[in-house]
Amino acid sequence: MRYEERIKAQIMRLLLEGEKTFYDIVHRQDSCLPETFALLSEMEKEKLIEIDAGKIKLTAAGLAFCKENNIRELGNVLCEACEATGIVIGGEFKKILEEYKKIAANRPKAVEEYDQGFISLEGVIKRVAFMYERGDIQNTEIFVGGDDDLLSIVLALTGMPKRVVAIDIDERLIDFINGIANERGLPLEAFTHDLRYEFGDNVRKRFDVFVTDPVETVPGIRLFISRCVSALKGIGCAGYFGLTTVESSRKKWYEIERMLLDMGFVITDIRRKFNVYPFVEESHGGFEETFKIVKKLGQKANCDWYHSALFRIEAVKEPKPLVKGTAELGPELYVDEETWATPE
Amino acid sequence: MRYEERIKAQIMRLLLEGEKTFYDIVHRQDSCLPETFALLSEMEKEKLIEIDAGKIKLTAAGLAFCKENNIRELGNVLCEACEATGIVIGGEFKKILEEYKKIAANRPKAVEEYDQGFISLEGVIKRVAFMYERGDIQNTEIFVGGDDDLLSIVLALTGMPKRVVAIDIDERLIDFINGIANERGLPLEAFTHDLRYEFGDNVRKRFDVFVTDPVETVPGIRLFISRCVSALKGIGCAGYFGLTTVESSRKKWYEIERMLLDMGFVITDIRRKFNVYPFVEESHGGFEETFKIVKKLGQKANCDWYHSALFRIEAVKEPKPLVKGTAELGPELYVDEETWATPE
Repeated sequence: MRYEERIKAQIMRLLLEGEKTFYDIVHRQDSCLPETFALLSEMEKEKLIEIDAGKIKLTAAGLAFCKENNIRELGNVLCEACEATGIVIGGEFKKILEEYKKIAANRPKAVEEYDQGFISLEGVIKRVAFMYERGDIQNTEIFVGGDDDLLSIVLALTGMPKRVVAIDIDERLIDFINGIANERGLPLEAFTHDLRYEFGDNVRKRFDVFVTDPVETVPGIRLFISRCVSALKGIGCAGYFGLTTVESSRKKWYEIERMLLDMGFVITDIRRKFNVYPFVEESHGGFEETFKIVKKLGQKANCDWYHSALFRIEAVKEPKPLVKGTAELGPELYVDEETWATPE
Repeated sequence: MRYEERIKAQIMRLLLEGEKTFYDIVHRQDSCLPETFALLSEMEKEKLIEIDAGKIKLTAAGLAFCKENNIRELGNVLCEACEATGIVIGGEFKKILEEYKKIAANRPKAVEEYDQGFISLEGVIKRVAFMYERGDIQNTEIFVGGDDDLLSIVLALTGMPKRVVAIDIDERLIDFINGIANERGLPLEAFTHDLRYEFGDNVRKRFDVFVTDPVETVPGIRLFISRCVSALKGIGCAGYFGLTTVESSRKKWYEIERMLLDMGFVITDIRRKFNVYPFVEESHGGFEETFKIVKKLGQKANCDWYHSALFRIEAVKEPKPLVKGTAELGPELYVDEETWATPE
């Protein structure tokens, strides 16, 4: 299988550097967790690698395989200045980062119940900087669908949007965001909403841009994106969201892309590994042991291994949500056979 | 219209820096040439800008408009170290660039007849570095569909692919590539082929990866990509190609993305402005005056304004070319109402 050969080449190239943990490998190759897990097991059976106390290394046979198959390290090609995102925190964004850091220091801790997890502070700023570059925050009304990251606050801090509205299922976050908005007089408001229910007229067709970080199941994404799409005014409006390769295979990406096109959107950007979820206690790290992958390995993370790609989409037709009415969805909204880093 | 507001915001933000030419603007906003042209004309009518001897600047009314609409410069957010591509020329790629520079110094000049144009030398290396990062060049058979850029030579110089095959309609390029391959004993061969005709069994289903820079009309891209797709072995195989926002609107991108999905591919990466076509005599610059935009403006380029996004696609189903058999296409293969930088 071509796909396995490719990922194998990515993994073996890494192991030429020296021994690695599973987590070291995950964030430097392109397959999703169950695939990586299966592939490493297969490589162990083929005696290309040895796994000892959570450390993975090449065997002599593995080294020979690399030679035979032209697998070599040509050196690092990822830009360190921007962590390969292409975006740096320049100009006024430096000041905004300092403000945001102070604010985020007091935010509610991520909880398992809502499968929360924060992208890095710098990552949030870069996401907003990218939106700025596209002309998507100047004088616009922006909808943030789920806001563990407090991205709505950063958007408002730029002083550019006409209005920012954030929704979340978690009341703690809503109170926190509204508190900051009042304290600083920002054009920002937040309210609780469960995305299983449709929006009212205060949200529907009221926004130019949406931002969200959906759950990673196909029904979950269909629902999240549909709701956000229903918030857009019309043609030319844009959406931003994160999607991982960690919990979503290329087949799942394909289903999602078809969905996006069916809703009337062109994909204008897919920026691989744009955002990283740091594995510290305050973010995901607090309930890491509930993840299938952590249970399977019996080993907790030793690095920031969870990352997502940034998608930008733009309506070329009248935006058409694929889900309408109340969604009757249970656990399949959050979990499928690839979501090995989501509480079950 | 939301789209016009967004592009206007991008343009006016730039003009806050000072006066610009049309070309200065083109490469720092997201609309295609006829759209940019129409929008600037409209802004001139609205007296937001003045155009004098090819220089565009904000009027007092334009400045007031920026203030009212919250259009400001927040500073540069594009990484200078990698020119916002995320990729740097590190490790062995530095040596490969030096070799490639020497080789490319003697290459045939771009000609109008085939709508040729070279991406920058550094850009070619970065494209290959990105492919390397994905595991797409290690021990693979790679097909290059049209090779003005001599990318096939760079791929072979890495010493990684099992085999590289380049085709082009231009005999001068084929002779040049084969000459280099023989001289250096590279696993590389080139032959002439007109993509209007199907490939024979020596190409069909023989490759793991393709790379191409298609013309920018929908029928042209349908044909180019179909032919390249027919060269792939099956599921998991990948393709790379460039697509511009300069000659293709978001609507055209939408048609193309639908086509890609219909052929069985997921889009895994869209990296905006990944490659630049330098406007020097040896590249496009030699027949610049044949471009519609240059005729319309009566003004030649003053900067490297023509760039393309890099797409990576991967087959999640058996690859299915949409065009089969000989294609009977005339000028509509090369030119549509958006291709204002293509000889007519």
